[in-house]
Amino acid sequence: MPDQKHKVAIIGSGNWGSTIGKIVAENTVAHPDLFEKDVPMWVFEEDINIPSDSKHHAQLGDGPHKLTHVINTVHENVKYLSDITLPSNLIASPDLPSTVQGATLLIFNLPHQFLAKTLDQIKGHHLPYARAISCTKGVDVTEGTVTLFSEMIMEHLAIYCGALSGANIAPEVAAERFCETTIGYHPPPMDLLQPDGSPHDTHNLIRIDEQRQVKSQPTSVRLHHVPQRYPHVDAHLLTALFERPYFQVHVVPDVAGVALGGALKNIVALAAGFVAGMCWGENTKAAVIRCGVLEMIRFGRTWFPESVDERTFTEESAGIADLVASCAAGRNYRSACRAVEKGVSVEEIERDELNGQKLQGTSTAHAVWEFLSKHGMTEKFPLFTAIHGILEGSAKVEDLPDLLKRQRKKID
Amino acid sequence: MPDQKHKVAIIGSGNWGSTIGKIVAENTVAHPDLFEKDVPMWVFEEDINIPSDSKHHAQLGDGPHKLTHVINTVHENVKYLSDITLPSNLIASPDLPSTVQGATLLIFNLPHQFLAKTLDQIKGHHLPYARAISCTKGVDVTEGTVTLFSEMIMEHLAIYCGALSGANIAPEVAAERFCETTIGYHPPPMDLLQPDGSPHDTHNLIRIDEQRQVKSQPTSVRLHHVPQRYPHVDAHLLTALFERPYFQVHVVPDVAGVALGGALKNIVALAAGFVAGMCWGENTKAAVIRCGVLEMIRFGRTWFPESVDERTFTEESAGIADLVASCAAGRNYRSACRAVEKGVSVEEIERDELNGQKLQGTSTAHAVWEFLSKHGMTEKFPLFTAIHGILEGSAKVEDLPDLLKRQRKKID
Repeated sequence: MPDQKHKVAIIGSGNWGSTIGKIVAENTVAHPDLFEKDVPMWVFEEDINIPSDSKHHAQLGDGPHKLTHVINTVHENVKYLSDITLPSNLIASPDLPSTVQGATLLIFNLPHQFLAKTLDQIKGHHLPYARAISCTKGVDVTEGTVTLFSEMIMEHLAIYCGALSGANIAPEVAAERFCETTIGYHPPPMDLLQPDGSPHDTHNLIRIDEQRQVKSQPTSVRLHHVPQRYPHVDAHLLTALFERPYFQVHVVPDVAGVALGGALKNIVALAAGFVAGMCWGENTKAAVIRCGVLEMIRFGRTWFPESVDERTFTEESAGIADLVASCAAGRNYRSACRAVEKGVSVEEIERDELNGQKLQGTSTAHAVWEFLSKHGMTEKFPLFTAIHGILEGSAKVEDLPDLLKRQRKKID
Repeated sequence: MPDQKHKVAIIGSGNWGSTIGKIVAENTVAHPDLFEKDVPMWVFEEDINIPSDSKHHAQLGDGPHKLTHVINTVHENVKYLSDITLPSNLIASPDLPSTVQGATLLIFNLPHQFLAKTLDQIKGHHLPYARAISCTKGVDVTEGTVTLFSEMIMEHLAIYCGALSGANIAPEVAAERFCETTIGYHPPPMDLLQPDGSPHDTHNLIRIDEQRQVKSQPTSVRLHHVPQRYPHVDAHLLTALFERPYFQVHVVPDVAGVALGGALKNIVALAAGFVAGMCWGENTKAAVIRCGVLEMIRFGRTWFPESVDERTFTEESAGIADLVASCAAGRNYRSACRAVEKGVSVEEIERDELNGQKLQGTSTAHAVWEFLSKHGMTEKFPLFTAIHGILEGSAKVEDLPDLLKRQRKKID
């Protein structure tokens, strides 16, 4: 029988990282049989000044203060998740090696552009038998290759990693408004069987080879057993770690579908924003969402035929629910809408209203289009292709309905 | 080779009926090889006064005028679809028998409560080999029985009938904003094979027997051949009849799924309205929509296992797109939202703001709950059951999240 508790660490502390940190730290208290209470959270350290009208000014003074000090003192991430009280057992730390040290469960929640660098810094400091969950939405698409963030983590650290994604606009989750999420986790066979003997197992990474269009190229990673003194890391344990009364968890084995849903929906959200900006109404927006679902399914079916379960897109929070929420709110949707209203490009909105920050949707649309081009498949994805064209200036928003008519009526 | 053209008649002229009449009359002009140009449209006659500030006042005078006269004079249904010009070959008629006489294609577009009575009046005046499409959304649910409107038409008139449904808010379609629709049409085998010999074929109606929970009870109707002098009535012909540049048609064989989608989505729209009224945000609304999709699939799988294709709910305009549009706009959504905002029941909204008119969602929620109760299946449909409870006053909107947690996480 397991007699040791899991130690959980959070890597990243933006608004979604802090929200997930809150959830996890609430659950380590709720399940003292499974988890150690204290949850270290790695914070990218920065200096914070406390305005004199802040409710924390009396306690903290002007500053500048270290963000970790502020979080650990007032239990609020005043910079990235203000007005939400964090559990006192969520402990901010500026030091990455000590945060991950001894942790059996690593929860990643970083902007994707910092992931590779952060993994390099973690390497060698983590337990070889740790398990991980990536809460960073989306996938990395570079020219002809799609890489799941979970697999990037797996490859760098040689630990098994799943993915969490869903209709989870962070401030609404932090405010404890009811929602759902999906965890993609396909535990290594050894985690279920716990055979004696071999101290490791291999896991085939899902990769798309540039030359081979319809099959994934397995690359394997050697994994270590989670020692039997720890509770099994399975759907039950992950539900205990992430489910709250306001945050319903569903664990599915389809990690790739969960990750793809979180990436591709951003392109559709831009399309929905264009429709809203044009005041074309709810019928047109619904048509765009439907075409988006079809293209998500087709993308999964074409390149991840063995790993993606189409129902992840049509029945899970990480699929249809996240898509619907992203097409009703969120930065991609709003920025595209605003671009049309102002008669400017989305790039100009990024430059003038988002301080040059790139939207997930624009970079994903570009990367996915490049990927589709490499594989000679742009015609099979008329919505994704149309949105890329509009962003690049080679197509007009006005033409979107005509471009969508090319959408095959039935998935092949 | 066929040498005769189809004659199309429209039964019903509300805002959706007039919109469909506009589409069809545009297409009989566009396809003179397939259809006779003139399209009679049956109008429930009423007297209309023309206000002095109407643009039609100079031409028509005060009135009172017959609505058919107004439509045929100014080519506008001033009462139900104002400011939309109707094609001059769409000809309003107050006389039902003469409208359907000689028509090979009957397009039904009536409020469902008038359907049975209208069918009685048509009987004996229509061609025995006519084919029909029902554009009335939804299904009739009475205690333990679900009846598709298309099958009610089939049974009364002994003619084959399909169904049209989609994310089609009528004024937006009439204004020619881009959208999509789904036609469920499963042509009788004889229509495809055109065998010589037998002048009729049988068609098994889909019925749910009160005692038998998981199988439909076939009742057959004897159908007559469409004579070979007419073009085949198939997906190609229906697309020619309904598709416009702004109205994209997809024909599927799943008539039951198309009809069920149009009925069940109204319950989900009420749920989404409650969420909006509570200001719970987009995550919660997306969760409600996802639960709605799951329950639609489950409903189809449980009672129409042989006839419903689940992809109608997840991939077609009559499924996910109509659901999404109805959860963003439309009377059910708005009325439920308003009830919460005003702190009153939906029934009070119906009484005070809708002149006592019943919402599709409230009657469907009640009928579906009765149906589920009869079959002992309420627990498997927590969203539908919760909405019924809220409407009946036995549950509170505040409890919706808790009630939804009972939603099985995976369809069985």
